[in-house]
Amino acid sequence: MRQYETFELTFSGSAPRDQWAAIDLEATFTCGQKTTAVKGFYDGGGQYKVRFLPEEPGEYFWQVSGAVSAEGRETCVPAQGSHGPVRASGAHFQYADGTPFLPFGTTVYALASQDDALVDKTIAALKNAPFNKIRMCVFPKHYDYNHNDPPCYPFEKRLDGSWNTGKPNTAFWQRLEAILDRIGALDIQIDLILFHPYDRWGFASLPQKDNLQYLDYLLRRLSAKPYIWWSLANEYDLCGSKTLSDWEEIEEFVAVNDPCRHLLSSHNCFCFWDFSRKHVSHCSIQTKALTEIPRWLLRYQKPVIIDECCYEGDLPHAWGSISGREMAYRFWRCVCSGGYCTHGETFLSDDDVLWWARGGSLKGESPRRIAFLRKILESLPGPLEPWITGWSGLGLLTPEQIKEKLEGGYTPGDFTCLALVSIQRMQPDDRAVHLASEHMWRARCGEEAFLQFFGIQTSAECVFDLPKDKRYRVELIDVWEMTRTVQLEHASGSVQVCLPGREGMAVLITREK
Amino acid sequence: MRQYETFELTFSGSAPRDQWAAIDLEATFTCGQKTTAVKGFYDGGGQYKVRFLPEEPGEYFWQVSGAVSAEGRETCVPAQGSHGPVRASGAHFQYADGTPFLPFGTTVYALASQDDALVDKTIAALKNAPFNKIRMCVFPKHYDYNHNDPPCYPFEKRLDGSWNTGKPNTAFWQRLEAILDRIGALDIQIDLILFHPYDRWGFASLPQKDNLQYLDYLLRRLSAKPYIWWSLANEYDLCGSKTLSDWEEIEEFVAVNDPCRHLLSSHNCFCFWDFSRKHVSHCSIQTKALTEIPRWLLRYQKPVIIDECCYEGDLPHAWGSISGREMAYRFWRCVCSGGYCTHGETFLSDDDVLWWARGGSLKGESPRRIAFLRKILESLPGPLEPWITGWSGLGLLTPEQIKEKLEGGYTPGDFTCLALVSIQRMQPDDRAVHLASEHMWRARCGEEAFLQFFGIQTSAECVFDLPKDKRYRVELIDVWEMTRTVQLEHASGSVQVCLPGREGMAVLITREK
Repeated sequence: MRQYETFELTFSGSAPRDQWAAIDLEATFTCGQKTTAVKGFYDGGGQYKVRFLPEEPGEYFWQVSGAVSAEGRETCVPAQGSHGPVRASGAHFQYADGTPFLPFGTTVYALASQDDALVDKTIAALKNAPFNKIRMCVFPKHYDYNHNDPPCYPFEKRLDGSWNTGKPNTAFWQRLEAILDRIGALDIQIDLILFHPYDRWGFASLPQKDNLQYLDYLLRRLSAKPYIWWSLANEYDLCGSKTLSDWEEIEEFVAVNDPCRHLLSSHNCFCFWDFSRKHVSHCSIQTKALTEIPRWLLRYQKPVIIDECCYEGDLPHAWGSISGREMAYRFWRCVCSGGYCTHGETFLSDDDVLWWARGGSLKGESPRRIAFLRKILESLPGPLEPWITGWSGLGLLTPEQIKEKLEGGYTPGDFTCLALVSIQRMQPDDRAVHLASEHMWRARCGEEAFLQFFGIQTSAECVFDLPKDKRYRVELIDVWEMTRTVQLEHASGSVQVCLPGREGMAVLITREK
Repeated sequence: MRQYETFELTFSGSAPRDQWAAIDLEATFTCGQKTTAVKGFYDGGGQYKVRFLPEEPGEYFWQVSGAVSAEGRETCVPAQGSHGPVRASGAHFQYADGTPFLPFGTTVYALASQDDALVDKTIAALKNAPFNKIRMCVFPKHYDYNHNDPPCYPFEKRLDGSWNTGKPNTAFWQRLEAILDRIGALDIQIDLILFHPYDRWGFASLPQKDNLQYLDYLLRRLSAKPYIWWSLANEYDLCGSKTLSDWEEIEEFVAVNDPCRHLLSSHNCFCFWDFSRKHVSHCSIQTKALTEIPRWLLRYQKPVIIDECCYEGDLPHAWGSISGREMAYRFWRCVCSGGYCTHGETFLSDDDVLWWARGGSLKGESPRRIAFLRKILESLPGPLEPWITGWSGLGLLTPEQIKEKLEGGYTPGDFTCLALVSIQRMQPDDRAVHLASEHMWRARCGEEAFLQFFGIQTSAECVFDLPKDKRYRVELIDVWEMTRTVQLEHASGSVQVCLPGREGMAVLITREK
């Protein structure tokens, strides 16, 4: 048994009779004062398994009961290289051992539903890609550029053709796990999508009791995987067969039946899942409105990942036809707003294999730039929070703060107060879009580092107001050419920085030691 | 007297004594059953003038009374080349004679406050530019990159140093008019800004009665100019010395005292002027949220001009540092949303002369592209209206229309209805920014022409659903390279168009005759 690695017990027994999903198989793992209860599962061929993810090293006593009875002792040795599952920490993430985790994700929705050759090719591509998180579905996907049947299905069928969630197809689950484990071994977190609406097989419209039975089996198998995150759905709001209360029940079921309390969220098409709910660990958002990240950070006080913001590619669809440059810019925009971003690639292809849907190889120009950004971000002394200054922050003031500002009195030339008064008078929809347009892509790590992305701004100069009692190095970054040029050293207070007057520039300011 | 041209009567008399703004000098011009009353003004040196803009040819009888008494007859000959003042017509503009006017404006705020050499240079530049409208101020402007004193001031000063609006400086007004007339002679409409907040001389904080006296004199002098539009203010909401009711009084005063009923609007920094007010002819908007144009067209049922959407240049400020490409794109975005756009240029310069502020010469890359777009637009059989299809129009549905759509019933796979339900549930600010991001830059001229700008979309193909009973030519346009390539002829119904997979493309579809 190793800290932060899946510990598995296997027992032989007679196969369950009518169904083998919700079997009676429980285990407890006790280390010192702490006992963790987990459920086991039937893996076919007379094999029963119990999995457990130890988070503390030490002496464990385990006890299995139900379909199998057994007990034993294990010494859990301290982690060597493993960091444990990722958790939310404020507006950011870290592994269980405290190591920061900065998500730079990609998307291969139906990876697990492709044939082995394509899966191999995709995993090989992931090995050389800058991504440390992947969004992928359990169920196959039926959508444009993605109509193939999967190699196998998660359940057996009843005679009437409906899916029997009580009889999981263990071949499917073993194959899925093998894929997940290979990806996990690349230090890539798996944001596993439990439901989605793009379906022709019936998985999107199972009865709710079957949804829960499916989840029960899945949780028994996968909860002990250190790399797993739960995404209740891709575009939960387009799943016409489930009501909001179905979703809430699903959320509760996953949270309660996951002994490891993995990260949990749900992904929207339009209306966000309510990220303020207690079991939700982070905001998993589809949007192009990246300007709103500071507002959402303030609202939810949880990490914000823009898990879909359009894909690099050339599809007819607006969501699948941004340039590599734009994809890279969106990563910069998210990061320089205190959030995170997820990649996807949708290039029309003769073989009908699009990365975002099925995997294959990466063809775009953004991954190199995302790697460049990731390296910069990982070099900073801590995570970034929005750096709110001037008019770009007017939309974040509370009514009380506004009142206070205005009661302070103002003179005719006090344009900030006049702006506030005017903003209050705007029609709400006009105000929302206007405030969005005032956003600046600026983030900071306390007074240790400041990062501004200028995006499409073509300024030839800019001014930063830095703390006067500290000294900084100011670097000019070309986010597309991936160059870094030191512009100033020992900078302090108000500093003017020369910019080249073209798009795609960033300025990184780091405190000198 | 010529139709659509300023007719001027000059009389000599003794100079007024204490003040010469609100003098008693009235005139009537009668043609057939129609009598128009105008007021005259004192132009210094014992000269009294009365100006009139005849809109109908015919026999006129005029009568002047007050400081001067006279009467006479004039034959007004039909226009030869002049089209008269521009009026709003639905969501678009046309000259008084019905000729369409498609505004392609620029901005030189303090043009009239520059020395003669710079004014000459600016007018020479305008002669070769694609702009047919200019935004400029009466008063000098004090702001970044624009701190010079004007050659002369509009009023005399009292002994205490305050401006005496009762004593206009006729040299100022004669000079201003000469500049306006030279620009008007280039077939450029003048969107004359009557007030603005960027001031160190006191013109932004005159007492309200002085504001009205200033306007009275200005209207007597300039109302008969065919090329004039009234912009009550630039950024009225940042004018800290005027209340909303001051502004309403100003609006009313201008409208009532302008016998020619010139176009009238007021320009915001944040909250729009209420364009639904009866005297307001069109929406003069500052915004970067160009996606909202169809919503505003629907709300106000008046033409929408985005009179400030950032400027091509390299200033530190976000509003003054977009590329020429982005400026050109914004023109395309406005036009392909049913609105119009205004240009400005803000390049840092050794001589401190920035086009947007003071004039000089144009240095940017957008004017050529704006010329290219203007030519295309003027070749269409009529003005463009938003072309609303699919999800891009969900934000424009009324609550009743939404109810109707949803009551029609929907199936789980009916994603449009699911989207509508989800959108209804969104928090209002999230909904506003989300719907904005669904906007497509698509406009149409009935079934005669369709124009889509793909902006940053890099699609390699797209599909258009055209009327099945008509035939169309489909052209691919590179808005930056300014190329037009016919892709299809005799197209009808659902047509697939190949795109080059790069940014900045547009498709123009015109009906074949």
